This record gives sequence, C-alpha cells and structure tokens, in this order.
Amino acid sequence: MIKVRDLIDPTDFSTDEINEILILAQDMEKNPERYSNLCSGKILAALFYEPSTRTRLSFEAAMLRLGGRIIGFSEPNSTSISKGESLEDTIKIISCYSDIIAIRHPQEGSAKRASLYSDVPVINAGDGANQHPTQTLTDLSTIQNLKGRLSNLTVGLCGDLKFGRTVHSLIKALSRYSNNKIILISPDELKIPDYIKEEALKNTSMEIQEVKSLEEVIDNLDILYMTRIQKERFSSEEEYLRLKDSYILTKEKLKNAKDDMLVLHPLPRVNEIHPEIDLDKRAAYFKQARYGMYVRMALISKLLGVI
Amino acid sequence: MIKVRDLIDPTDFSTDEINEILILAQDMEKNPERYSNLCSGKILAALFYEPSTRTRLSFEAAMLRLGGRIIGFSEPNSTSISKGESLEDTIKIISCYSDIIAIRHPQEGSAKRASLYSDVPVINAGDGANQHPTQTLTDLSTIQNLKGRLSNLTVGLCGDLKFGRTVHSLIKALSRYSNNKIILISPDELKIPDYIKEEALKNTSMEIQEVKSLEEVIDNLDILYMTRIQKERFSSEEEYLRLKDSYILTKEKLKNAKDDMLVLHPLPRVNEIHPEIDLDKRAAYFKQARYGMYVRMALISKLLGVI
Amino acid sequence: MIKVRDLIDPTDFSTDEINEILILAQDMEKNPERYSNLCSGKILAALFYEPSTRTRLSFEAAMLRLGGRIIGFSEPNSTSISKGESLEDTIKIISCYSDIIAIRHPQEGSAKRASLYSDVPVINAGDGANQHPTQTLTDLSTIQNLKGRLSNLTVGLCGDLKFGRTVHSLIKALSRYSNNKIILISPDELKIPDYIKEEALKNTSMEIQEVKSLEEVIDNLDILYMTRIQKERFSSEEEYLRLKDSYILTKEKLKNAKDDMLVLHPLPRVNEIHPEIDLDKRAAYFKQARYGMYVRMALISKLLGVI
Repeated sequence: MIKVRDLIDPTDFSTDEINEILILAQDMEKNPERYSNLCSGKILAALFYEPSTRTRLSFEAAMLRLGGRIIGFSEPNSTSISKGESLEDTIKIISCYSDIIAIRHPQEGSAKRASLYSDVPVINAGDGANQHPTQTLTDLSTIQNLKGRLSNLTVGLCGDLKFGRTVHSLIKALSRYSNNKIILISPDELKIPDYIKEEALKNTSMEIQEVKSLEEVIDNLDILYMTRIQKERFSSEEEYLRLKDSYILTKEKLKNAKDDMLVLHPLPRVNEIHPEIDLDKRAAYFKQARYGMYVRMALISKLLGVI
Repeated sequence: MIKVRDLIDPTDFSTDEINEILILAQDMEKNPERYSNLCSGKILAALFYEPSTRTRLSFEAAMLRLGGRIIGFSEPNSTSISKGESLEDTIKIISCYSDIIAIRHPQEGSAKRASLYSDVPVINAGDGANQHPTQTLTDLSTIQNLKGRLSNLTVGLCGDLKFGRTVHSLIKALSRYSNNKIILISPDELKIPDYIKEEALKNTSMEIQEVKSLEEVIDNLDILYMTRIQKERFSSEEEYLRLKDSYILTKEKLKNAKDDMLVLHPLPRVNEIHPEIDLDKRAAYFKQARYGMYVRMALISKLLGVI
Repeated sequence: MIKVRDLIDPTDFSTDEINEILILAQDMEKNPERYSNLCSGKILAALFYEPSTRTRLSFEAAMLRLGGRIIGFSEPNSTSISKGESLEDTIKIISCYSDIIAIRHPQEGSAKRASLYSDVPVINAGDGANQHPTQTLTDLSTIQNLKGRLSNLTVGLCGDLKFGRTVHSLIKALSRYSNNKIILISPDELKIPDYIKEEALKNTSMEIQEVKSLEEVIDNLDILYMTRIQKERFSSEEEYLRLKDSYILTKEKLKNAKDDMLVLHPLPRVNEIHPEIDLDKRAAYFKQARYGMYVRMALISKLLGVI
C-alpha cells in the first residue's frame, strides 16, 4: 500500500513501498498481458519543459503498455510559457485534462511546486540538478533484478560526482539498506559535495570511500555505476586531458573486475564506456533502460491507485 | 440532430444545436464511462500551425477520453510547409488518414479554406484574430453549468475588447438568448470595434453599455469575463501605467461583486487576475478549462455522427 | 510468408512478398474492422530525425488503425542527439520500449545501421538521398489498385530524375515485372544517373527511353509519375525559366493523354501539377496518399508477424 500521492524526491517512498514497486515491476515484465488494460481510460500528461527523449519515451511506453493514453509536450517552445503563463496555472489546467502528470523542468523545486497545484498525482521526471527519482527507482530495480538484493553490495560510482543528481540520489537510496559500501571514484574537481555524504550517512553506518582512480578499486566492486564526465567541468584543458582516461571504461580495465560485476549507466553515454564493452555480459546499461520502463509502469499504477 | 458538418464560426450552430451539445457535454461529465469507447477506431488530426498548449491538449484529451486516437503536429516547423505545400494539399492528404480535423492557424479564413478541401469534418481551433468557436462553446457551457441559464444575465467583459476574438464571439453568442445585458469595460484604446456591436445587435434588442472602469459596474454583474491586456497596445508607457490597474481584478475590487458572480477568463492569464482570487468561490476559470474538454468531447462526437 | 525482418531497401522483398503485402493492404482497405485490433498492445516508435509530416502521419495513422500505439519524435532538436548520444545507442534503448521502429534520417545508410543494433524490426522511412521503400510500396500499391497490374505498363517519369530517390526506386521495382517500358522525361541537368539505369537493367530487358519534353510522349503513357523540380538545380536562372514549363502538368498537356492514364506524385507538390487537374479523374496522387496508409498497415503487420 503506497501512502504518498506524488513522487518528487527518491525518499518519498519508504523502503517497503519501494520494495512493493520493484516486485510489481518484475511481475509486469514477466506477465505483461495481465496489466495491458490496467490504466485503460486514464491519461498521463508528459510535460517536458526540456528535451529528454529517453525519459519521455520511457514514461510514454510505460503508460501505453498499461493501456493508458498520453498527452503532453516535449519542449517549452510549443507551450504557453511564451504567453507568460505561470507553471502553477499550466498545472492547474492540465490536471483538468489528465489523471497523472510526469513533469521534467530545468528549475529545481519545480516538480514540488507543480504537485502543490495539481489535482492529480505528480511524478518528478527530473527538476534541474535536483532530483530524478524514477532514475533512482530504475537503478534499484536493475540491481534487484540482476543481483537479487539491495544490501551487502560494494558499489563504485565513477565520473562526475559533483553535478550528477543521479549519483546523489542513488547513494542516499542505498544508505537505507544494510551493509552496503560506496566507493566514490572521481577527480578532485568533480568530488561529491560534502552535504550529500553527510545526508547519506545521517541514519546509517554505510561505509564511504573516496579514490581518484578506477583501476585501483575495480576488482572490489559488485556494481560499477558510470556517469558522463564533461570537459568544461575541468579547471583546464590540460587537466581534462590528463585525467579523462582514468574515467573511461575499457575492456582492459574490465579485465580486473569480478565476473559478475554489473556495469550501470543512466545514459546517454558519450565516450565514458567504450562500445566494445556492450557485448560483455557485465554490461547492464541497456537492460537498465528496459527495467526503467517496467518500474515506471509499476509506479504509475500505484500512484493512480489502480492496483 | 446536428446539421452542419464543420464548425468554423461560432454561429454555424443554431441555439438548439448548441443546446444539444451542452446537454451532451454535461452527461459526458457525469457519466464518462458511458462514452469511453464512443470514438473507438476514429482518428482526430490535431493540426496546430501555431502553438497553443491548452487548446491542443484539451482537444487531445477530449478525443482520448472518447476512446479515439490522435495524429498531428504542434508547430509548423515540423511540417511540409517548408517544402512549399499548400494548406489545401496538406488538408486533402491528412483527411485521407483521419476521421476529423481540428485546425489552428495564424491566418484568418484558413479553417474555412481547410473545410472546403477536407473529406472529413473540420473544427476551427482558432484562425488568427478571426474566430475560436470551441472557446465560445466552452464559455457557454461554463455559464450554463454554473448559472443554469444563458439568458437574463448581466455580463461584464473587461480588458482588451478590440483584439480579443473570444470576446467578440461571446457577445454574438449571447445576443441569441433573451434578455442579456452586456457591459463592455475597457480603455478607449481597446474599445470594441463598432462592427462587432452592430453585428451583435442586428437581430436582437440586447442592451450594450460601455464604461472605462471595472469598479463602477462590478456590483451589477452576474458574470465578469476577464481578458489579457497587453502593454504594447497602449499609445504610450504612461498611458499603460495610468490605466492598467483598472483592469486587474483584485480581492479589493471583488468585495463589491455579487456573491454568486462568476469570474471567467479564456486563459492563459498573465497578471490580470490576482492569484489570491483563485481560492474565491466565484473564480470559475479553471472549471472553465474542464468544461472546455467536455464540450469538445460532445462536439467531436456530434460531428463524427457517432451519437 | 515474409522472410525479412527489416525493410531498408525496396528490393529487400521478393516480388512474391510484395504481392502478399499489396493483397493484404487491399483487404485492409475493404475490411478495416477485421484488422482494427491486430496490433493491440504493440508500440511503433516513429523516429523522425528530420521533419516529414506526410510520411510520419501516414505511419502513425497506419499503426493506430491497427489498434497499436505510437511513441517517438518528429525532429532531432527534442532528442538526445544534442547530448552526443550515438544513433546506435538511441536505437538500442528505443528498441527496449517499442515493438517496431520506423526511422527517417538525413544520412544515407542510417536505417541499415539502425537495423543492426535494434532488437525489433526496423522500417526505413527515408535515409537521405538513398532509399524510401514505403514510398515505392505506395507507388506499386496505387498502380496495382488502379491499373490492376504491375506489368505491361508504359510509365513516364517526369522532372528531377537526378536527385529523386523515389524515382530511382520505382524504376528498379518496375524492372522486376515483365514487359514494362520506362520513359524518362527531364532536362539534361536533371537526367537520371547512369548507375541507376544500369542497375535497373541488370537482370531485365526493360526498355528505357529518355526524352526532354513531356508533350512528345504523354499520349503513350499508362502512368505519368511527376516529381518536384527545384530552381536551384539548374545551371542558371535563364535555363530554369526556359525549361520549367515543360515539366509542369497542365490541363492543356493532359488533353493528349490516354483516358485512363494515371497521374502519380509522391507529394508534396509545389507547382508542377496545376491544381485544376486535381478534379480530373486521372489525378491519382491523393488516392496514392491513402493507399500509402494501407500499405504501411500491411507492412507493419507482416514485420510484426501478427498476420
């Protein structure tokens, strides 16, 4: 039984509620026909104030696979923003037309604001650098599916840990399960902010280790979570060139990893995972995209209260 | 029994036909499940040659709630206009794919032109400064629903009455019912054009009064219809600053209004209704958006001849 | 029984397979209700990396009329390309969400590349100047429907034969049936490339004749296939003005044509067919648009293996 109506922050759900969603998502993957009319007659409004193909199409495919329908937009140009309408008014109107809203917005806090004015459930599909809770659910679902557990894991997070909201949320989420160890792998310029670590460690004794090189820790990892690393975030071109190779996953580096380690990535990837790795059985990032659709199906069903 | 096939001008329908649509819209609101497969297998083409989120999403939600499907576009850039195709050709082709067309176009008369070349019914979803008949149906439906009548009403129309097609159509529509009184509230710069008044008064004895201040008449009104007022339409910055406050609805001004007065607005609103009024029971503009969806459901069903 | 999984090149299908699709398309037109749930629960991803309204809406209407659903985008701006994602990655992810993909892309060979990385069938909806196989199926279906045969035809192709991929594919397709004769009608600047002729004539004795004037051959034609002719493709403004009228179809020129000749055009048309001809019974280009939808319905069903 899910108690909240909106999903704004990854921790809006208790671990029990998350568990409930992950189990439902698994059953939806195994028995899709059971759920193919669950949301029949319902409308999801997909409001994308900035483009994000993967997230948008994942939500849309999820709703369609439940028998529901979609309205929405995929960029702000084609909306009434240009006429000066406030987010609050847009949400009030669209909640007249739809049964549930997924909103992506460049401004932090916008999803929360939307939820305050909406008559229907609101799902945060990413609000600026702040939160992206369905990505976190996707990550947890992938780990649960492929590892069979969310605890007793050594998880390496590699790349841009400073700006990567995905990483911040995942650390917080994993801190709620027992006996996980986090290894943060990044250059100094892109180290995780202290407040994220502090928040994650508030109610837990989860071990967090920080290193600069992927190679020195890869053999310890159960999961390696890669992220994009952007040139313009380094202090200088030289610094970038000196460091970037440490954060690119190659076949060579993967040699030292455990046989059953999982490589995850929120996607899109640019060059931080070499395509030759796509065929390695440890590469799980495309499966992750698929789990993302099922977990969104489960989430939508739960928030709509149809199951 | 609706006799016309297309809805181009708000007066394409007789008052009996409008009445039929309003009654059907009411039943669709009360018993949505009765109509949820009415348009199953039918396709609405939503052709938006200029962006208009609310209108587009209202049409799309309407069709989806009837069990129908949508094709279309939301801005001209992604269409064949750039290849030099005429509107006539586009319409001929799209009427091969769809069962009914809703068209929004910046040019006056374009919806009429479209209807001449289409093999399927065409709904005008706004053609430049000319007509926006589904907004008029929305306005009438809102008044009928919340006031229980379309006659014996004192209706104040406030703001930009010169360029507001919504207002022009509503005056004409109200002139067809008995014993209505219209009070036009605008600065000299934005007074209603004479031909609109003359047209509205052609077959009726409806009283029309013109004033410059909302405050002096608000206590008489059964309905206050607000519209956006744009700075660039004033002769000078000073004139704008001097006058604009008269046309902004505040809690203060609302104090003198009747207890059961309705505040309507075609939306989007910018600042002409203070958000503090949203919680006042007289504020009906968000309900209006909802009625707009039901009246479009009724309209689509009638024009498709499925009911 | 269709053996291929993807449709990238018009000759991916044998003539038997094409025949099977054309027959199914005909039955879908005659008995639409028989097929209205055939693809229920299936999702078509319409990935349009460049705008093409007609083709996109034709695919979408086709899938919706089969009871299927649509996800996708209609221009690259709203996609992850801007984040540097490769086509291969996008396809891998979207094939997680969908059951079949239609891709339109400005680069030659992109549809083929997509098919190599997709887990689901891929349909080429146009890849640069290369191929547009569903247009070829549309052309064949139109000829079969209105002429009753794909052999023993004298087919005139008029206009820009140099850059028109539609024309190239149609010639190749017609060369696989017996006793057809092709008459190529174009200015020197826009003559068909030699390699296209050679390829078409490789396994056939089809007669190909080249002329510069439509008027001198129009009386021989069973089919006249018109194409757009663009000003900027001529060597000079004078040359364009001197020649363009020869390639514009007028009522005057049509006088000499056979009574049952068909005028086809892939559309959009600019001015190469005078609108006065639209009402002539030989004008078949709008019917062609309709046949295009049915042939796409047949194609989708066959590739999905649901029939």
